[in-house]
Amino acid sequence: MQFTSETSSNGVIERRFTLGEITGVLWTPASGAAGAPLLLSGHSGGMHKKAPGLVAGALHGVTAHGFTVAAIDAPGHGDRPRNVEDQRWVEAIHSARTEGKPIAPIVAEYNMSLAERAVPEWQATLDALQALPEIGDEAPIGYGGMNLGVVTGVMWAAVEPRIAALGFGGVFVNEALIEAARKVTTPVECRIPWDEKEFDNASGVALFDAFASKEKALHAYTGRRTPEYERDSSARFFAHHLGRAADAGFELT
Amino acid sequence: MQFTSETSSNGVIERRFTLGEITGVLWTPASGAAGAPLLLSGHSGGMHKKAPGLVAGALHGVTAHGFTVAAIDAPGHGDRPRNVEDQRWVEAIHSARTEGKPIAPIVAEYNMSLAERAVPEWQATLDALQALPEIGDEAPIGYGGMNLGVVTGVMWAAVEPRIAALGFGGVFVNEALIEAARKVTTPVECRIPWDEKEFDNASGVALFDAFASKEKALHAYTGRRTPEYERDSSARFFAHHLGRAADAGFELT
Repeated sequence: MQFTSETSSNGVIERRFTLGEITGVLWTPASGAAGAPLLLSGHSGGMHKKAPGLVAGALHGVTAHGFTVAAIDAPGHGDRPRNVEDQRWVEAIHSARTEGKPIAPIVAEYNMSLAERAVPEWQATLDALQALPEIGDEAPIGYGGMNLGVVTGVMWAAVEPRIAALGFGGVFVNEALIEAARKVTTPVECRIPWDEKEFDNASGVALFDAFASKEKALHAYTGRRTPEYERDSSARFFAHHLGRAADAGFELT
Repeated sequence: MQFTSETSSNGVIERRFTLGEITGVLWTPASGAAGAPLLLSGHSGGMHKKAPGLVAGALHGVTAHGFTVAAIDAPGHGDRPRNVEDQRWVEAIHSARTEGKPIAPIVAEYNMSLAERAVPEWQATLDALQALPEIGDEAPIGYGGMNLGVVTGVMWAAVEPRIAALGFGGVFVNEALIEAARKVTTPVECRIPWDEKEFDNASGVALFDAFASKEKALHAYTGRRTPEYERDSSARFFAHHLGRAADAGFELT
């Protein structure tokens, strides 16, 4: 993992990094990250590691809860070149939209293909982050994502014991995603933007229902933007599930 | 409205009252209720105005948010005699349970009958509460309920402009309830205890979907008890929607 830039603003240090072909960004509290929970953030399809909503959530997590937050570009997204096969998916989505056909089945399949490639990249990124002295392998780990980021998180959590909490937003759901969710036992909080016409609410509820997690919560809300109290609630969810190790650290000193 | 007893404990004054045949209880902050939002609380079928969960929520609302909270017994519940017709409903529910038949359709119909009688009682109770000097007609009003309390709240909110926010728990849903929800435009927060086998999750989601409210939120959660963060979230929901008038009062001083 090579850091390629570092800036600092409002108590948050932002460092861009590369790891082989992977391009990413790491936000840490300027006051020090020792013992901080690590939150991994997966962006939507068509977006990138510095998508506005992702950055807003990351900065809130760092400043309000003292989290360390990392995000990487999905294959063919952000700073990474798109391959020929992915270009065909993107053109198929554009064509469907132009012709007024439903894009959900195409996006769901494209997301699944991207997620299969993104999971080993997230694993390698987490290995490298845990090798950093300011993070280490004791930091409790959460994963949050939107749409493509949800698909990646579900596929990853089904095989990754290091993730202790999952927070998800709206997503295009297909049967393969439901099947993967049935293998996930990590505590999970799902959000459904109920008025967002592109997502099918019933399949969002079916995805929530499919998680094998003993602790799971569903939050549906109306309106065009995520309400501020929902953003707070998401950070509190992670603090609730990831905060304990940090607290234990304080107790040991 | 006649107060029949008054006790005080941990900063909360509890007064029992009667209003004609209605029996009720009023909790107010010992530090004074002027300008406090008024939260009306509807109990589950088979329970009463001092059901343990209701009391816990009421005390939290008074102590953590400075609310005034009122609850009344539904017809034939708590301190009120059960009439012959209601006795038949109760026996039908017991028989169905003994025979292993589904109770949901019977409970839903019984609740609808109780709610039709409870709505004018709640209206009279609210009139009387607003006539009290420590409440007045400026206090913002919320209504929260569980099961029977949800049915009563939906039927009431469809015709009652004074209610500014609704908070609901699990409920047996039938088509008549869905129809009433379509007339409700008040901000609403619905909770579904996802593991509670007695309630049908899909019909709980359908009820949430039916509300005409521009602002609505659904929270589903697992586990046998309401998680503490959900109880906090409910109080925050009411504080968010009812707090403004209280804040304005402070600004005016």
